[in-house]
Amino acid sequence: MKKYVIGLDYGTDSCRAIVADSATGEEIASSVKYYPRWAAGKYCDAGANRYRQHPLDYTETLESSVREALERSPAGTASLVAGIGVDTTGSTPVLTDDRGVPLALLPEFAENPNAMFILWKDHTAIAEAAEINALSKRWDTDYTACSGGVYSPEWVWAKALHVLRSDGEVRKAARSWVEHCDWIPALLTGNTRPENILRSRCAAGHKALWHADWGGLPPEAFFTALDPLLSGWRACLFTETFPGDRSVGKLTKEWAERLGLSTETTVAAGVLDCHTGAVGAQIAPGVMVRVIGTSTCDVMVASREEIAGRLIPGICGQVDGSVIPGMVGLEAGQSAFGDVYAWFKRVVEWPVKHLLSRSQLIDEALKSRLTEEILSGILPALSEEAGKIPAHESSILATDWLNGRRTPDADPLLKGTLTGLTLGSSAPLIFRALVEATAYGSKAIADRFIENGLQIGEVTAIGGITHKSPFVMQTLANVLGMSIKVSKAEQACALGSAMFAAVASGVHPTVGEAQKAMGRGFSDVWRPDPAANRIYAGLYEKYRAMGKWA
Amino acid sequence: MKKYVIGLDYGTDSCRAIVADSATGEEIASSVKYYPRWAAGKYCDAGANRYRQHPLDYTETLESSVREALERSPAGTASLVAGIGVDTTGSTPVLTDDRGVPLALLPEFAENPNAMFILWKDHTAIAEAAEINALSKRWDTDYTACSGGVYSPEWVWAKALHVLRSDGEVRKAARSWVEHCDWIPALLTGNTRPENILRSRCAAGHKALWHADWGGLPPEAFFTALDPLLSGWRACLFTETFPGDRSVGKLTKEWAERLGLSTETTVAAGVLDCHTGAVGAQIAPGVMVRVIGTSTCDVMVASREEIAGRLIPGICGQVDGSVIPGMVGLEAGQSAFGDVYAWFKRVVEWPVKHLLSRSQLIDEALKSRLTEEILSGILPALSEEAGKIPAHESSILATDWLNGRRTPDADPLLKGTLTGLTLGSSAPLIFRALVEATAYGSKAIADRFIENGLQIGEVTAIGGITHKSPFVMQTLANVLGMSIKVSKAEQACALGSAMFAAVASGVHPTVGEAQKAMGRGFSDVWRPDPAANRIYAGLYEKYRAMGKWA
Repeated sequence: MKKYVIGLDYGTDSCRAIVADSATGEEIASSVKYYPRWAAGKYCDAGANRYRQHPLDYTETLESSVREALERSPAGTASLVAGIGVDTTGSTPVLTDDRGVPLALLPEFAENPNAMFILWKDHTAIAEAAEINALSKRWDTDYTACSGGVYSPEWVWAKALHVLRSDGEVRKAARSWVEHCDWIPALLTGNTRPENILRSRCAAGHKALWHADWGGLPPEAFFTALDPLLSGWRACLFTETFPGDRSVGKLTKEWAERLGLSTETTVAAGVLDCHTGAVGAQIAPGVMVRVIGTSTCDVMVASREEIAGRLIPGICGQVDGSVIPGMVGLEAGQSAFGDVYAWFKRVVEWPVKHLLSRSQLIDEALKSRLTEEILSGILPALSEEAGKIPAHESSILATDWLNGRRTPDADPLLKGTLTGLTLGSSAPLIFRALVEATAYGSKAIADRFIENGLQIGEVTAIGGITHKSPFVMQTLANVLGMSIKVSKAEQACALGSAMFAAVASGVHPTVGEAQKAMGRGFSDVWRPDPAANRIYAGLYEKYRAMGKWA
Repeated sequence: MKKYVIGLDYGTDSCRAIVADSATGEEIASSVKYYPRWAAGKYCDAGANRYRQHPLDYTETLESSVREALERSPAGTASLVAGIGVDTTGSTPVLTDDRGVPLALLPEFAENPNAMFILWKDHTAIAEAAEINALSKRWDTDYTACSGGVYSPEWVWAKALHVLRSDGEVRKAARSWVEHCDWIPALLTGNTRPENILRSRCAAGHKALWHADWGGLPPEAFFTALDPLLSGWRACLFTETFPGDRSVGKLTKEWAERLGLSTETTVAAGVLDCHTGAVGAQIAPGVMVRVIGTSTCDVMVASREEIAGRLIPGICGQVDGSVIPGMVGLEAGQSAFGDVYAWFKRVVEWPVKHLLSRSQLIDEALKSRLTEEILSGILPALSEEAGKIPAHESSILATDWLNGRRTPDADPLLKGTLTGLTLGSSAPLIFRALVEATAYGSKAIADRFIENGLQIGEVTAIGGITHKSPFVMQTLANVLGMSIKVSKAEQACALGSAMFAAVASGVHPTVGEAQKAMGRGFSDVWRPDPAANRIYAGLYEKYRAMGKWA
């Protein structure tokens, strides 16, 4: 009898539900629903880097996307759904009351951004992250050691402390916090009391300083020393954590009804999106999976024997069981990739946006069609022209740190540079240098893994850019000196969640078996050109040296 | 009885003649004639940085511009013209035969670029300049000492040697060379034999290693050591040189007829254009005159007492009598100024040029009007937007070395840099940083003078940009921390030549008196904002530090 699994993928803007055949991984139907309050620009302040999301944005789109995906499936599918897996962005935590209710769901906090989920890219907690880093370096145990040695302002403890400090009303009501990826499974299974929620291994390990070696979260004394506001919080949290192949329970009657599913449906433990993406793209030891979009998330897994107790410095995190249960999961990433190209597009489109719009020569309708035509053509045309230039024919060298550097060796204050400019440095030459810079940033991450004894036999890429720009992919292969396979799974994150659901509900015995059965394989392979790779090896050394003065 | 003087100004593209009232400096009439062969793109190869001009381009436009300026003057003006002064670009030399005839005027060389004038910006002689520098450092006298310590590929000896080496036919025919600014007065007065030409002090001193201290040109042994091809050349050249207020004779019958003037018309010694520009803009001790265009030429004069035998290192040249007779003339300059802005315009106009042109939405005629409208609006709109941003609100720091650095401390291999880039770095922010960079380059020159004991009480600006961009002028004043006066003389170079003509023909006793009588005064004054100046003082130190790794 056919069994189906649902993969739920909460991105930055929308919730996607896919219904997959658990035997083949084939996507039977899917639905995407955009967060309505977020789409209306509510609760955010881009100038202050404050990004908040209302819990109702998550629950409303959960219901509507699952229902629509099921409606688009063959009749009878709902009754054959064995399990649901959930991935979300992260660290995206919310403060809760003592029952585990996100504060924004209480009437008095319904419109208070500090009572809402704090999206991964919110940067309001820079000061708090710095305090955590300073305290951890002074402490007898450096609790950031498994997070590359640097705690990020994007992570839960910095964000929770920042909100507690800045909002007296919230401070009075808050007793605990929960990550988005833990709240959804808790809600679906009716197990939302903070001290009882079965928490995600990967969110806890990568973002909350959790580690088995120090008995879970850092000790109460650490948090009290950080700020007495955090006294007692540890007791309302957790000691154990769970990988994504673990069931956290079955759907409650309420949610079974809301989603149109049975109360026998298993819910898997939550996982962060780039980790399910890596699983969906068939990650295995020796493969670096890169989720390439506006930024990158780079994931590897290694056996405990291969890691042999080493800590890899300067990456985002290293957590046993965070990606594939039984293996050590490793995460790194670039804070800007596609965003670097989008920046250059904004620079060169300026005359079109500011001068074409003022012209009296054509009417408004034609103006807007012409503007749209030019703007949408910029990156493809630049890629085409840049692709014609040989690797050694430009004197321009760029760095990719326009949004700081996430890894290796986090430095949020680094900035981007273009050097080697001459009066002949054209827009395509500059664009080419920027693409090379993002590839150098990628090589710096791969090199950090390799220098610390990990093998990278191949690279697998997922994400929008992998399908959009042959020039970017070829340059990346040339700089890395490695072949890059592109996963056929266009929704690798949701597929990974579906794989976890298939294991949690007992359809497959292990994540590895689920990957074998449900993996979609690979389409393009980008192979490095050895001559270009030799040239880039020299240029890459110059890129590295620029870190010293950027 | 009224007396008139003619100022002839040979620029890169055209010859300009003005007829000025010698009592007031008022411009009675003028005419500009473009070099016909140059305008047709002949004899040049931009890719190889080879720029040559045919002597007939100079003589034809000499005749037509003077005749047209006189036709536009009140009847009877021609008979009241006391003298003609001539300025040209430089170093712009040509090889001649033993009679002083530029080789391209001989039928067998009429189409040979190596037999033509080698324009100032021709960069074919980089290797020869390097050899001159190396030899001079080894010699017991460093003959580059008065040229800032570095001989440039743009100067006569490097160019002459390069052409001799690369063209056997030219080598056989050539016996001497002459600068454009010396050839025109020689031709007009019928005194063209190489050993008899009365040579310009400023061209000889700034470009040909001439100095009174070492008895004129460097010794024969130096040139023979440089290359035996130059053996015997010194004897066909000169020992004496002449400032621009000296008469070199009267018009020949032939040229008096061609120009419609009397044979009693005095011809002044030739001068390089930025030096007559400085005179026309009323240069005096304590004033730095900046000719600001695609690049800059920065001129000062100092009394011999103020200089007291010092040599200012790293500038272009220091020559007694090169600007104002009896004073020491000092020249420096930036190799790119307006060219930096033009470069950025080329970068951001790329989508308009490459994508608008392909559009099927509008017809060709409308497309070309719209393109023209947008392109011409870019720099004004960027200036307007950039002007609204406070000095401290950008993290971007740029350097202006996109065409190398001319002064201080020539380094043609330096390149430009943009650093401090973030995802929020907009086109106006980048443009602002580039304008600041050109101002920092200006400050580096002013500081070099000041560090070597010269006083700069004020700055006077001439050239296109001084009238076109208030934003650039205000930024320049803010960075320099000095007021900048804009000369009312829109054709300061031609006016300076007219002043020299007035002294050479006896109308005024000295250049200082001619400046007092004929100077046109000043229009705008740009005063520095002290708060912005303080901010820029810190940023300037960072700009300086970037020279170490650019």
